[in-house]
Amino acid sequence: MFNKRIKIKELLQSKQTGHKVTVMGWVRTFRNNQFIALNDGSTNNNLQVVVELGLLDDETLKRITTSASLKVIGEVVPSPGKGQKMELKAAAIEILGDSDAEKYPLQPKKHSLEFLREIAHLRFRTNTFGAIFRIRHSLAFATHKFFNDKGFVYLHTPVITASDAEGAGEMFRVTTLPIDNPPRKENGDVDFTEDFFGKSTNLTVSGQLEGELGATAFSEIYTFGPTFRAENSNTTRHLAEFWMIEPEMAFCDIEDNMNLAEEFIQYLIRYAMEHNGEDLAFLDQRLADEEKQKPQSERSEMGLLEKLRFVTENKFERITYTEAINILLDSPAYKKKKFKYDVAWGIDMQSEHERYLVEKHFKKPVIVTGYPAAIKAFYMRLNDGCEPGKETVAAMDILAPGIGEIVGGSQREERLEKLEQRMTDMHLPVEEMSWYLDTRRFGTVPHAGFGLGFERMVLFVTGMTNIRDVIPFARTPKNCEF
Amino acid sequence: MFNKRIKIKELLQSKQTGHKVTVMGWVRTFRNNQFIALNDGSTNNNLQVVVELGLLDDETLKRITTSASLKVIGEVVPSPGKGQKMELKAAAIEILGDSDAEKYPLQPKKHSLEFLREIAHLRFRTNTFGAIFRIRHSLAFATHKFFNDKGFVYLHTPVITASDAEGAGEMFRVTTLPIDNPPRKENGDVDFTEDFFGKSTNLTVSGQLEGELGATAFSEIYTFGPTFRAENSNTTRHLAEFWMIEPEMAFCDIEDNMNLAEEFIQYLIRYAMEHNGEDLAFLDQRLADEEKQKPQSERSEMGLLEKLRFVTENKFERITYTEAINILLDSPAYKKKKFKYDVAWGIDMQSEHERYLVEKHFKKPVIVTGYPAAIKAFYMRLNDGCEPGKETVAAMDILAPGIGEIVGGSQREERLEKLEQRMTDMHLPVEEMSWYLDTRRFGTVPHAGFGLGFERMVLFVTGMTNIRDVIPFARTPKNCEF
Repeated sequence: MFNKRIKIKELLQSKQTGHKVTVMGWVRTFRNNQFIALNDGSTNNNLQVVVELGLLDDETLKRITTSASLKVIGEVVPSPGKGQKMELKAAAIEILGDSDAEKYPLQPKKHSLEFLREIAHLRFRTNTFGAIFRIRHSLAFATHKFFNDKGFVYLHTPVITASDAEGAGEMFRVTTLPIDNPPRKENGDVDFTEDFFGKSTNLTVSGQLEGELGATAFSEIYTFGPTFRAENSNTTRHLAEFWMIEPEMAFCDIEDNMNLAEEFIQYLIRYAMEHNGEDLAFLDQRLADEEKQKPQSERSEMGLLEKLRFVTENKFERITYTEAINILLDSPAYKKKKFKYDVAWGIDMQSEHERYLVEKHFKKPVIVTGYPAAIKAFYMRLNDGCEPGKETVAAMDILAPGIGEIVGGSQREERLEKLEQRMTDMHLPVEEMSWYLDTRRFGTVPHAGFGLGFERMVLFVTGMTNIRDVIPFARTPKNCEF
Repeated sequence: MFNKRIKIKELLQSKQTGHKVTVMGWVRTFRNNQFIALNDGSTNNNLQVVVELGLLDDETLKRITTSASLKVIGEVVPSPGKGQKMELKAAAIEILGDSDAEKYPLQPKKHSLEFLREIAHLRFRTNTFGAIFRIRHSLAFATHKFFNDKGFVYLHTPVITASDAEGAGEMFRVTTLPIDNPPRKENGDVDFTEDFFGKSTNLTVSGQLEGELGATAFSEIYTFGPTFRAENSNTTRHLAEFWMIEPEMAFCDIEDNMNLAEEFIQYLIRYAMEHNGEDLAFLDQRLADEEKQKPQSERSEMGLLEKLRFVTENKFERITYTEAINILLDSPAYKKKKFKYDVAWGIDMQSEHERYLVEKHFKKPVIVTGYPAAIKAFYMRLNDGCEPGKETVAAMDILAPGIGEIVGGSQREERLEKLEQRMTDMHLPVEEMSWYLDTRRFGTVPHAGFGLGFERMVLFVTGMTNIRDVIPFARTPKNCEF
């Protein structure tokens, strides 16, 4: 019944005029009782609907308020106005749903991002968030297309897990036990055999370990699903619930891994530039306007589109962790004691250090490899021939301007004895992880993979600065609305 | 470094011979110290690697066991053997990883699905599960492609939620409170203000309500993510964690909704038939072999491929709930008291009733509409002009042979007063759901959507019968391995 409507994006893209169409959407503005800017979410560009004098009675005209929903039948005609090639000459307008202008929280003016976060259920109806979430969609689709075209298998790794060996961060408990009075064992401990899964379970922090099980059968898999951190971090870069993309490749070393990650990031950006030109142009302008409010010294050197083009056209810088430390030690920032945290071989680089490397020194994305084993996860491959006390692993992090770590990856330790030794040293439950070690027991292969934080990628492409603005409904400490 | 390898699928699909290639994979079988069947997971078809006498010493030959991993460099030559057009004449073989044949759980023989479920981390290496999970991948990709091509926005609705009004089933609690000694308020109740999100939170049972927020801004959205039910159902059709696809469309009624769901299901099946021909042929044969073990009377009338073709080529049957009840009341099964549960207008049809309609009466997928309001969710649109006491809603369920309900959907109640009334009648927290009701306050529109259980769709397409066999790592009561 409603299928005969045409979407506004499609209508504006076609060159045809003179025919009759049906459109539906929400009123953005209504000027002079004559010009309705109608939007249906398919594009930020509104369709101008022209209401001729006498078409509607006064009663109806009054109901055409911001966010009222309309069905309009009319003729597509060339527009005499500037800014649009065509407009719709209304022959009939039906009001599908009213919107009380006094009560509607989104007025046709600029609202702060903070305010819009509080009405996240309505912010989709603004130009900024329309653009952001259409771009987010494109980046998600491009992710699937990139890996599908390469023959990777999309693996849905589990969200609920009993494994707690990944050490990626604090976890949320998942339970059906009555929390006010859980069953107890004789010694008083909570009896998790009575829980839904018969044991203590959590929300996953990564699908990697299960991903490795897939890669050692299908050669190449990827995951793309929600992951969780129960860390009390109230920052502009952290979410308790976020989406992560984790490819895992058999017959792959750290070099191949870096190449794939770089190719992937550049592919995503190019895809958005090809498919979301209007949305990116809008956000580019938005960012330029924001920048103008800042003092000269704090302004970005590049605009959004300029930055995106730059990243797709230039190779990422590749340096070792040791080189990174030496650059930091040599830096004016270090010498003038501008860093809050000390620099020395062995440190887990802080955000300020990463930003210095990326934003000041190289001014482009940087891939850092060969991190100290002591600060990295158990599954990363030990590099051969290290100086004693300076053992490194085949890890790689990609740092992006304005974002920090956007990718973390490694070649995995495929040698059973070395892996078992590392797990024992780190007090990990070797027995419980026997399923994982089976991949090393039965036809082990060199393999590697990485995780890309999807929201950080969306931040990078949209030029937004708070991660809560690029996920539909953010989950952060003390915040779980909608 | 490893990038120069060619995948076996690609090698077997090319017609070229006479050139040198590098392949890597796992040994499936090794016959006569001469013929290695090598598999890399890109296809069920193994590459025959020919080892000429004298190429390898005895020591190395012994290490070529089932599941050992190899790197083989050789020349692609036409195969004199039947069943394959080409084979690889090995010039060099490197063993990447050994596999102790005595200990490897997967022997080159038929294993039961039950046994394979226990070694779910290795079952990907079998032909059956290789086929299933490549098809699952294709169906996931086809889902994104279907909606992307239509201009839907992929919306990542939250997994952790504080909303408990959806009434779709029992929920898992998500918490960071110490379960053995949670903080308490003065009256002794657990103090959830101390919990991570400052309130009691759960795993989502559906992204629909948030999806409606998206659809009333972007016109058309879809979700595709994990959903959860804490129900103690140990059946072949239920999982505690499963993936669901939920499109939601503004300017859409129940008719459009049915059309879209039918088109989507047929699209998915056609996509798999086009892209997974070999995998489906394998599963078709597998099912045919299984059927042969059954007594004649229990065998399916159609083979797998025949069934899939039938579903893509025939329109689904569409009947009202009232018609469905009348068919059941008229059925020989009812008259001979073969149903365990009684039949009368108003019942929530049981699996046996749905199976009768789909498998005995119509022998095709059936869309049932117009269910009694009393057995359906609060957000479904009340049909106008119902007989008092026989109120129905614009709901639609799609029932598939062998699966039962594969889609559940409805046109949503877009009229604010009727929705509020229904919520009040059902004792739902109208105040708390104010954000949801805002979509009806500010430019409400007719809209509709449905949920498709992804694993049930994979079951249908693969012809498997236990839902645990079509998800990588099943989560069911007392079972959370890997």
